Amino acid sequence: MPFPDRSDSPPAEPPAGRTGISATLAANETLERKRREGVPVLPMAFGEAGLPLHPALRRELAEAAGRNAYGPVAGSPELRAAAAGYWTRRGLPTEPGLVVAGPGSKALLFGLLLVIGGEVAVPRPSWVSYAAQAALTGAGALFVPTPPDEGGVPDPGLLANAVQRARRQGRDVRSVVVTLPDNPTGRLAGEPTVRRLCEVARELDLLIISDEIYRDLVHDPAHAVTSPAAYAPERTVVTTALSKHLAAGGWRLGVARLPDGPRGRTLRADLLGAASEIWSCAPAPVQRAAAYAFGEPPELAEHVTRSRGLHAAVAHAVADRFAAAGCRVPRPHASFYLYPDFGPLAGRLAARGVRTGPDLAALLLDRYGVGTLPGSAFGEPDGALRLRVATSLLYGEDDEQRLEALASPAPQTLPWIARSLDRLSQVLAEVTAPEPALAGSPAPW
Amino acid sequence: MPFPDRSDSPPAEPPAGRTGISATLAANETLERKRREGVPVLPMAFGEAGLPLHPALRRELAEAAGRNAYGPVAGSPELRAAAAGYWTRRGLPTEPGLVVAGPGSKALLFGLLLVIGGEVAVPRPSWVSYAAQAALTGAGALFVPTPPDEGGVPDPGLLANAVQRARRQGRDVRSVVVTLPDNPTGRLAGEPTVRRLCEVARELDLLIISDEIYRDLVHDPAHAVTSPAAYAPERTVVTTALSKHLAAGGWRLGVARLPDGPRGRTLRADLLGAASEIWSCAPAPVQRAAAYAFGEPPELAEHVTRSRGLHAAVAHAVADRFAAAGCRVPRPHASFYLYPDFGPLAGRLAARGVRTGPDLAALLLDRYGVGTLPGSAFGEPDGALRLRVATSLLYGEDDEQRLEALASPAPQTLPWIARSLDRLSQVLAEVTAPEPALAGSPAPW
Repeated sequence: MPFPDRSDSPPAEPPAGRTGISATLAANETLERKRREGVPVLPMAFGEAGLPLHPALRRELAEAAGRNAYGPVAGSPELRAAAAGYWTRRGLPTEPGLVVAGPGSKALLFGLLLVIGGEVAVPRPSWVSYAAQAALTGAGALFVPTPPDEGGVPDPGLLANAVQRARRQGRDVRSVVVTLPDNPTGRLAGEPTVRRLCEVARELDLLIISDEIYRDLVHDPAHAVTSPAAYAPERTVVTTALSKHLAAGGWRLGVARLPDGPRGRTLRADLLGAASEIWSCAPAPVQRAAAYAFGEPPELAEHVTRSRGLHAAVAHAVADRFAAAGCRVPRPHASFYLYPDFGPLAGRLAARGVRTGPDLAALLLDRYGVGTLPGSAFGEPDGALRLRVATSLLYGEDDEQRLEALASPAPQTLPWIARSLDRLSQVLAEVTAPEPALAGSPAPW
Repeated sequence: MPFPDRSDSPPAEPPAGRTGISATLAANETLERKRREGVPVLPMAFGEAGLPLHPALRRELAEAAGRNAYGPVAGSPELRAAAAGYWTRRGLPTEPGLVVAGPGSKALLFGLLLVIGGEVAVPRPSWVSYAAQAALTGAGALFVPTPPDEGGVPDPGLLANAVQRARRQGRDVRSVVVTLPDNPTGRLAGEPTVRRLCEVARELDLLIISDEIYRDLVHDPAHAVTSPAAYAPERTVVTTALSKHLAAGGWRLGVARLPDGPRGRTLRADLLGAASEIWSCAPAPVQRAAAYAFGEPPELAEHVTRSRGLHAAVAHAVADRFAAAGCRVPRPHASFYLYPDFGPLAGRLAARGVRTGPDLAALLLDRYGVGTLPGSAFGEPDGALRLRVATSLLYGEDDEQRLEALASPAPQTLPWIARSLDRLSQVLAEVTAPEPALAGSPAPW
């Protein structure tokens, strides 16, 4: 009996996430190698916020460095109170007792899927880790397409059909994950879709997990985020973290807002039971800094506003380049992602031997040093000629450039960002030209 | 279909760990309440190191506060190199490529059990979380008693029998966990036992997970720790962390040393796959401080030596009090735990209605404010009149007292520690007196 893998518990669908993480790591390695070789690269595979930490966050962590006690599994009282205030200010009144902190919202999502058990319905496309986490828990994911031009929420009608069909087959679907706003598409599902999703979840008795980690990065402040917690408060868990709007991914700090009521209390107890056995608590010094952050002092609020503006400017500029090359590009509503569709260019790509999303991502990466992820990493079929493009690592090579981008009223015009945009246009033009260009080394820029 | 628990996947044995964590939390709450009421308490339920962080660690974390990138799942190259050096200096030559960091060794242990799959053999008694983690992975734990007077390693002969019997019943036992030195007993298994354990593991093709988090807290520096990694390097994973010898439990940083060779590489890839989906990486600023710590600069090495001396002095002084009261107390070899057996006093306890370990722990807690954990939290039967006693929260009420204890050549004679010891003697005398004393409020001290 060698040390076996868990392939005896196959997920209901292939674990897209594992592919996604692997693809990200592979893309990063290739880009790093090319960079060392002096080849110009466009790192757009990895969803890191691409900005330095605000000095106030560094200061708070440094001051809390001596915090060495384990502390409560759910997080410190001050952190829970601050997170409760954060949600309350967003129209979701929250008691601190409903908050559970963890070492990243990813860990909280895993813990939730583990203790909820059963299969989880996830949007197609959706973030790489939902399906992979579901596979790790031994259950699996049920992919349900999003409505046309929306992202992050399964089409409610299709969800109802899919869950009912799965249950007739004896499958045990217990929850649904939504991403508001979405990764990979950068889109924010509209209020009618969220409301209908909540109705379906109630009809089918599904728990809703609403990953709102990009909530504060909606480009247009007038564009309201509708959380399912507003319509189905008795069955919705909301998660968020410091990783994206405050660029603190490496700090590992997330929070979950559990539903009130008896079911919520049972779920919270189960989550804390799993958390105490998997990670004990979130890192204590980081909890202190996170309490400060979720308190939203003016200096951080202003920083988030500036970050949002930078993300919007560059994401839209990159979207324009894909659109100009003939892609269909849903305009991103939030964060630093877009999801261009090369379907309109399928014929030209086929003439180059590119017939799948992975083919396309590999061509861009290997020949041009342009890192992206194929839609297949997000649960789409290989044939989907869609890419997830993350634009936040284009802000600069060092913190000086990144801070200049953050301060700029038109960051897309800064020389180093404009060069990246032009390089992208040039690569897209080559890849989608009517006649295949001669293969060769990357053009200089 | 309400949100179900995972009781449809019962572990092979009751999950001792959940009981352990719950018992710890309950004891902490009771002690905190009594403390607020002005009742003298002896907090000996919780295994926290009870010392402030060394200033150099605080400095390193503060300087690394700006590290906000996710970084490699396995940990930063500098941390992996430092941990490799740490093990190499302990007679376990280690390549940095074999090291995986995570947010605590607890998280790494969970990840390992999850990806190894199957059941895990654990010592009886053993740390609360092994069996609980195994239950969370859906498999379960096979408890195997330790040899008499040893702790942390299942009796190799009994292990062989138990695994063979379980396999004949169709159960799939794939690994064994050992704790060197041990929690709860404070004992260090001897070289012959470890060697024989390795032979059995090889015969039965079991992976060995060796939790060596207390390794640097062996009281007598001449008392050598034998790691199974020395005898069965092809199948042994070693874990350790900053939590105990450096008192940084709240920082959440652990490291694992994976076996070399093809199986080790597969296991490492599987562990990284799970880690990338559960926690992404250990907190980046803490990784930097941990790299410094595993480099073992003289100031930290001296601090660990002092801490070890304090733990030894107080643990032995507390053991003496239990022995004087008539308990059988295996002398602790390491850390700040002891495991007194009230078996010789069973008759006197029965006269007070105390017939189980949980009865005894409840009496001590509720009537006397003495927090301990019953052996049942560590997988023992309820009838075992044994307690896990953690002595490290007796060092002081504040950091000033704790640092004075750390600097003292005879910390057990410091007034606040001596008072706790005397209070313990008084409580034990009352609880084990031939005639039940009158029930009443706790005696003053």
